[in-house]
Amino acid sequence: MSKQKPTIPQGTRDFGPAEMLGREYIFDTLRRVFKRYGYQPIETPCIEQLSVLTGKYGEEGDRLIFKIVNSGDYLDAPLKANFDFHQAGASLKLLPLISEKALRYDLTVPFARYVVMNQHLLTFPFKRYQIQPVWRADRPQKGRYREFYQCDVDVVGSNGLLSELELVRICDEGFQQLGLDGVTLRLNNRKLLEGIATHFCAADRFVEFITILDKMDKVGEDGVFKEWEEKGFSVDATTFAQLKAISALPFQEALPQLRTLLAAGDNVIGNQGLDELETLFGWIGMRETSSIQIALDIFLARGLGYYTGTIFEAGTHDFRGSILGGGRYDNLTGVFGLPGVSGVGISFGADRIYDILRDRGIFEKLKNVGQKVLLINFGDAAQLKTVEIWMDLLAHGIAAEVYPEAAKPAKQFKYADQAGFGFAIVIGDQELAEGTCNVKLLSTGHQDTMPQAALIDYLKLTMAVAP
Amino acid sequence: MSKQKPTIPQGTRDFGPAEMLGREYIFDTLRRVFKRYGYQPIETPCIEQLSVLTGKYGEEGDRLIFKIVNSGDYLDAPLKANFDFHQAGASLKLLPLISEKALRYDLTVPFARYVVMNQHLLTFPFKRYQIQPVWRADRPQKGRYREFYQCDVDVVGSNGLLSELELVRICDEGFQQLGLDGVTLRLNNRKLLEGIATHFCAADRFVEFITILDKMDKVGEDGVFKEWEEKGFSVDATTFAQLKAISALPFQEALPQLRTLLAAGDNVIGNQGLDELETLFGWIGMRETSSIQIALDIFLARGLGYYTGTIFEAGTHDFRGSILGGGRYDNLTGVFGLPGVSGVGISFGADRIYDILRDRGIFEKLKNVGQKVLLINFGDAAQLKTVEIWMDLLAHGIAAEVYPEAAKPAKQFKYADQAGFGFAIVIGDQELAEGTCNVKLLSTGHQDTMPQAALIDYLKLTMAVAP
Repeated sequence: MSKQKPTIPQGTRDFGPAEMLGREYIFDTLRRVFKRYGYQPIETPCIEQLSVLTGKYGEEGDRLIFKIVNSGDYLDAPLKANFDFHQAGASLKLLPLISEKALRYDLTVPFARYVVMNQHLLTFPFKRYQIQPVWRADRPQKGRYREFYQCDVDVVGSNGLLSELELVRICDEGFQQLGLDGVTLRLNNRKLLEGIATHFCAADRFVEFITILDKMDKVGEDGVFKEWEEKGFSVDATTFAQLKAISALPFQEALPQLRTLLAAGDNVIGNQGLDELETLFGWIGMRETSSIQIALDIFLARGLGYYTGTIFEAGTHDFRGSILGGGRYDNLTGVFGLPGVSGVGISFGADRIYDILRDRGIFEKLKNVGQKVLLINFGDAAQLKTVEIWMDLLAHGIAAEVYPEAAKPAKQFKYADQAGFGFAIVIGDQELAEGTCNVKLLSTGHQDTMPQAALIDYLKLTMAVAP
Repeated sequence: MSKQKPTIPQGTRDFGPAEMLGREYIFDTLRRVFKRYGYQPIETPCIEQLSVLTGKYGEEGDRLIFKIVNSGDYLDAPLKANFDFHQAGASLKLLPLISEKALRYDLTVPFARYVVMNQHLLTFPFKRYQIQPVWRADRPQKGRYREFYQCDVDVVGSNGLLSELELVRICDEGFQQLGLDGVTLRLNNRKLLEGIATHFCAADRFVEFITILDKMDKVGEDGVFKEWEEKGFSVDATTFAQLKAISALPFQEALPQLRTLLAAGDNVIGNQGLDELETLFGWIGMRETSSIQIALDIFLARGLGYYTGTIFEAGTHDFRGSILGGGRYDNLTGVFGLPGVSGVGISFGADRIYDILRDRGIFEKLKNVGQKVLLINFGDAAQLKTVEIWMDLLAHGIAAEVYPEAAKPAKQFKYADQAGFGFAIVIGDQELAEGTCNVKLLSTGHQDTMPQAALIDYLKLTMAVAP
């Protein structure tokens, strides 16, 4: 086991100082925007009771949850006596017997759990944001990780559509503050989708209907239409062609055509979806957005079962896949015994946003501007004076370091260059004897020798005028 | 399974908005101090290969690591055919066969792994900080959690004792900036301990010797002495009494007595420890600390096997247990195939620091000062005007919210009070007709009615003079 070559688990990543600079920029920016709109931070544990997570993400989701082996003698005598380890499906059947805890799969279910457990302490509507990692045992691939961060912002305890407007504005301001141009936010409403399903007499198989619709990105319109037909949905080609035509229109033009389409029969739910979209688009149109484009997308489905109203998804032209998603859910806390609490939220995909901003060179401007000072270490008597001056610099608020040992000066200067220092200060035997120090401006190579007592003023002045 | 009453795993916690305020204060403060001394952030995955963690924390430590069940058919046919599930110790023997990944136990071993994997990209000495959660399957009790944060700051790639001085200064400045008074930082050196063990002819059983010494806090001096005797160490009572007397002295008085004690025989290692302590205390004495007391503690052992030089531990009078610990390790990366890289680091115990600051009332001053504005929502036509004014306020940088639905005004005002708003703005039918709005200062109940066009200037002025 010793002298092993270490690795990290597939689908996970280390973030070094350069990556952290960009990540902190994203998290700090979003945090500032969330706070400005009155959202407050919460954090929940990374590990949850397995029973809290199971059954919330579908069968496939359950499979992708990372389970933790119980501590101690998890295969105890009663278990060993009663469990048939050689039966078919033993892996799956043994799991709940040897694992009680798991890594969270998203931030939404833990949030619902939090709201239920703390319902008597919270003031509703409760507006929270949460920036934490989640885990999924997905097959790792480009842009898909097994450990990644979600940045969620949700309001629960109100039906008001103004929350949707607020989230649209947070999306706009968030991307604007991040400097991420070219984002399109697509909106739809699950009630409109239900109305369309009703129109196609598929209301009783709605989840199956939109699960197929959700593949639009992958298989295209014709693929969706074909699968609907195969699965026995009676979607007639004429109406589908009509929907395709409507999907290309801006909201104000699409609206009357959708009203006409859904006028047939008593399509209450579909018209309710249109009413909500009309109100929301009306409010959105009151002010220009500062950075994003907003469009209706009647084919946007958002697979997750718990959405019941408005749904959101955002992306950019130069990245495949969404960088933000969300929607309204009317009964997320119901499964934990608290029915009737409506909520709506969006989640920023920090990892994908990071990739786009990095590829566009946005992080370059964040780099250290070289205001740091390195004191070269010559050991012995000079070192003592160097340490004294170091402490003076620190006391004056100047970011200064002494090289921790008396290594060769060339090595120390190389460190100063690579670690982004702006200044190197030399106090060798000669300077010690003369009471001076030598200051080198590393960007230009320019050097000045001055009395030690003059150093602090010199540095402050030079830093103030430096680029 | 439905309508279950949800819980969270033992030893884990949710952090609501009030707790987050204090936690962010601690993390932001420490981050600022770490950065000022030139330390850069890194983050590593929460999940590591089990093989990276196993064997680094002793047998007890290995037991406390949370292991993750392999995904998919983890009990596959070959395993089922070859493994005897009914053998004694089956739980322990099966573990490596069904679990390849685990939650990290601390930040130090993942950091060592990171340094080894990225050695060709890093500039040494490499100074990093890392603020992330760790997990231990310890029995939960007051002040001990199964999921908790560590705030680690380390420098690797240099032997220079100046790094120790830098960490002492970070400790001083960290607690001063946090406003945590009354901290004592105790220092010792493992080489001095080795010298003392040598003096007692126990050098060949050094780890066992200091493992007993490490119980000083729990069993007292007499308890340690007794266990040493029981385990066959030849510690004579006279010398131990001498050590006890020395342990009560300030460093400058203790030093010559320790020199005398270790003069017997060729106690190179013990005197090397004293040399290092003498240098470090000499530097520390050059400037007064701004917040902490610093003392030699010759009975401080710090259990972990990997320390080889200076060791640190800090605490306060009003809290049992340490709130900071650390030390120098000469070969932490050796186990991963990179020998000869010395490092030194300290870790702030954020959870315990939080408890102390909370109990002392330090977080009270962080509370929201009520600069936020709530627009009361009356629905219908008034709502549209309210939304318009909301957007104007936001455009002028004023933190404003509209209540998301037209609930009863009393409910909305209650929300404004509980959620810490400073102002409530009413635009009802009358105000709508007159083009006015009514502003209520919630702290005093004072109300003003004014033209809508005058609102922004009024709010800006009032906020500027508010306490």
